[in-house]
Amino acid sequence: MGNDAKKSSSSSPSSTILEALQVEVSEALEGAKELQDSASAFISRNSTEEQSLRQRAQSLDSAIRRLRSQIYSLHNDKALDPKLSDKLEEDLHRATCVLTDGDAGSFLPPKAHGGFLRMFLGPINVRSSSKDIQLKVKEEYNAYRDRTALLFLLFPSTLLILRSWMWDGCLPTFPVQAYQAWLLFLYTGLSLRENILRVNGSDIRPWWIYHHYCAMFMAMVSLTWDIQGQPNCAQKQRGVQLFLQWAMMQGVAMLLQNRYQRQRLYTRIALGKANRMDVVWGETAGVDGQLWLLCPILFIMQGFEAYVGLQLLKTALFGVVTEWQVSLCGVLLILMAIGNFVNTVQTLMVKSRFKAKMKKTKSRQEL
Amino acid sequence: MGNDAKKSSSSSPSSTILEALQVEVSEALEGAKELQDSASAFISRNSTEEQSLRQRAQSLDSAIRRLRSQIYSLHNDKALDPKLSDKLEEDLHRATCVLTDGDAGSFLPPKAHGGFLRMFLGPINVRSSSKDIQLKVKEEYNAYRDRTALLFLLFPSTLLILRSWMWDGCLPTFPVQAYQAWLLFLYTGLSLRENILRVNGSDIRPWWIYHHYCAMFMAMVSLTWDIQGQPNCAQKQRGVQLFLQWAMMQGVAMLLQNRYQRQRLYTRIALGKANRMDVVWGETAGVDGQLWLLCPILFIMQGFEAYVGLQLLKTALFGVVTEWQVSLCGVLLILMAIGNFVNTVQTLMVKSRFKAKMKKTKSRQEL
Repeated sequence: MGNDAKKSSSSSPSSTILEALQVEVSEALEGAKELQDSASAFISRNSTEEQSLRQRAQSLDSAIRRLRSQIYSLHNDKALDPKLSDKLEEDLHRATCVLTDGDAGSFLPPKAHGGFLRMFLGPINVRSSSKDIQLKVKEEYNAYRDRTALLFLLFPSTLLILRSWMWDGCLPTFPVQAYQAWLLFLYTGLSLRENILRVNGSDIRPWWIYHHYCAMFMAMVSLTWDIQGQPNCAQKQRGVQLFLQWAMMQGVAMLLQNRYQRQRLYTRIALGKANRMDVVWGETAGVDGQLWLLCPILFIMQGFEAYVGLQLLKTALFGVVTEWQVSLCGVLLILMAIGNFVNTVQTLMVKSRFKAKMKKTKSRQEL
Repeated sequence: MGNDAKKSSSSSPSSTILEALQVEVSEALEGAKELQDSASAFISRNSTEEQSLRQRAQSLDSAIRRLRSQIYSLHNDKALDPKLSDKLEEDLHRATCVLTDGDAGSFLPPKAHGGFLRMFLGPINVRSSSKDIQLKVKEEYNAYRDRTALLFLLFPSTLLILRSWMWDGCLPTFPVQAYQAWLLFLYTGLSLRENILRVNGSDIRPWWIYHHYCAMFMAMVSLTWDIQGQPNCAQKQRGVQLFLQWAMMQGVAMLLQNRYQRQRLYTRIALGKANRMDVVWGETAGVDGQLWLLCPILFIMQGFEAYVGLQLLKTALFGVVTEWQVSLCGVLLILMAIGNFVNTVQTLMVKSRFKAKMKKTKSRQEL
C-alpha cells in the first residue's frame, strides 16, 4: 500500500521524462531498422563490385601465366631474341608485382587454407584483405619468434646449468617435461602462424612448415618418454642432454635468423613504400654481409642436429635405454637435419641466381 | 653456329606472333595497373562508408545500453508502470536483435579476441563479416563435434574391450598414450573453434571454453603420467580405467547434446529466414522434450566425473600409485564437475526465466 502511494506520487512529476524515454526508445528501434537497411544495401552493393574485381584479377592472373609459358617455350625453341625475351619477362614480372603486392592482390583467389588450419580452426577465413594488416601479421610473427628465441636459449641452458650445479648430473623429470610441453605449445603456435602467413601471401617455403609439424610430433613423443633417474643417470640421460645442448644452439641460430629476416622485411617495407615495383630488390639489399655469418652457423647446426639424432639412435639400439620414443626422436632429428640442409642450399641457390639475373638486367640498363 | 642458323630461320616467319605477344604483354601490364587503381579506389571508398556505418552502429549500441539501464533503474524505483516498462524493454530487445542478428551486426565493434587466440594465431582477424559464413562456421563446428563424439565413444570403449579380451586386464602404454595425445589435439581444436565462434558473435558461456582449457591441461598432464604395467596392474590402472569409462559416457552425452544444439540452430536459421526478429523464439521452440532427456544424463555424467576425480585422489593419496599427475588430474576432474554442474543449472534457470517471460508477453498480446 505504501509502495503504491509512493509509486503514484513519484511517477506523476516525471511524466515528461517518461515521454522523452518512450520517444528515445522508439527512435532507437527506428534507428536500428534504418542502420540494418543501409548495412544490407552496402554489403550487397559491395559484393557485386567485389565480384567483378575478382573476375578481372583472376583473368589477368591466368593471362600472365599463359604469356609466361608462351615466352618460355619460344625461348626454349630459340625462336625469341634473348634481349626481347628478357624485356618481356621483366614486363610480366612487373605486372605480377603490381597484381600481387598492391591492393589488387586481395581480389586474387585466396590460397587454399590447407588441412592443418582446417583441422584446428574449421572453415573460418584467416586471410586479411588489407596489405597493412598482412605486414602487421608478419611483423608480429617476427616479434613472436624473437621472444621465443630468447626462451629457446634460456630454458635449456638453465636446465643444463642446474643439472651440473644443483642436481648432481641428474635431470629431474618435471622440469624436463615442462620444457617439452612448452616446445609442443610453441611449435603448434608457430605452425598455425606460418600457415596463416602463407594464406596471407607470404612465400614461406613449405618445408619450414613441415619441419615444425615434425618438431610438434617430436615434442609430443618426447613427453611420453620416461626420464630415467638414478642410478647411473648420466649415461641414461645422455640423449636428453644432447638434445638440450642442440636446443641452446638453436636459440642462437634463431636470434641471428630473426635479425636477418627482420632487416629483409624492413627493407621490403621501405622499398614498397618508395616504389612497390622495386620490392624485389629488397631480396638482396643490405643483408649480404649477414648471410655469410648466418650460413655457416646454420650448416653447423644442421650437422649437430644430425649428430644428436645419430647419438639417440645409438643409445636406443646399443645402449642402456630401449624405449621406442628415443629411436623415433633420433630418426625424426636426422630427417629434419637432412630436410633443413637441402632447403637451405636451395634457398641460397635461388638467391644467387636471382642476384646474377638482377646484375645482368642492371648492367644492360646502364649500357 | 647451327643453333644461330636455326634461330634466324625460325624467328622470321613468326614475326606476327611475336608482335602479338608483345602487344599482349604490354596489355597485361596496363591491365594490372588499371586493376590496381580500381582496387585502391574501391577499398578507400569502402573504408570511408564502413567507418560511418561503424560509428552509427556503435552510437546506437551505446544508446540502447543507456536506455536499458535507465528503464531498469526507473523500474526499480517503482517510478514506471510495469506494463509500460515491459513494452519499452521489448522494444529495446527488438532493436538489439535487429542490430546484432542482421547485416548491421558486422559493423559493431568486434569482441576482443582473447589471449588464447592471440597466443596461438597472433593478431589476425578471425571475425567474418557475413552472417552466412558465421552460420556456416557454427554448422561446421557442430559437424566437428558430431564426428568427435563418435570417436569419443569408440576410442575408450575399444581400449576397454581389448583390455579384457586380449590384454588380460592390463592396458599397454602405447594405445593409452595415443588416446591421450588425441584428446590433447581434440581439446586444442575445440578451444580454438569456440573462441572463434565467440568472436563471431556466438553467446557460448565462457565456462565451456575454460572447461576445455582444463581438459587440454589434463590431457597434457596425463601424457606424462607413467602407465604402470605388471605385476598387479589391475589395481595400479584403476584410475585409467575409470577415466576411460567416464570418457565413454561423455561420448554418449556429447551425441545427445549435439542433437539438441543442432536442432536449436536449425530452428534459429529457419526462424531467422522467416523473420529475423523472432529469432529468440528459437531458444525454446521444439526441443523441450529433449531437454528432459538430456538434463538427467548431464547431471549423472557430472556426478560420475566427480566420482572419478575422487577415486583418482584416493589412489594417489592412499593407494599404490603416488605420482603427482594422478592427484592433479583428480583435482581437475572434481573442479570441472563442479563448474559443469553450476553452469548447467544456470543455463536451465535462464531458459526457464526466459520462457516464463515469453509466456507472459504472449498472453498479454492475446489479451
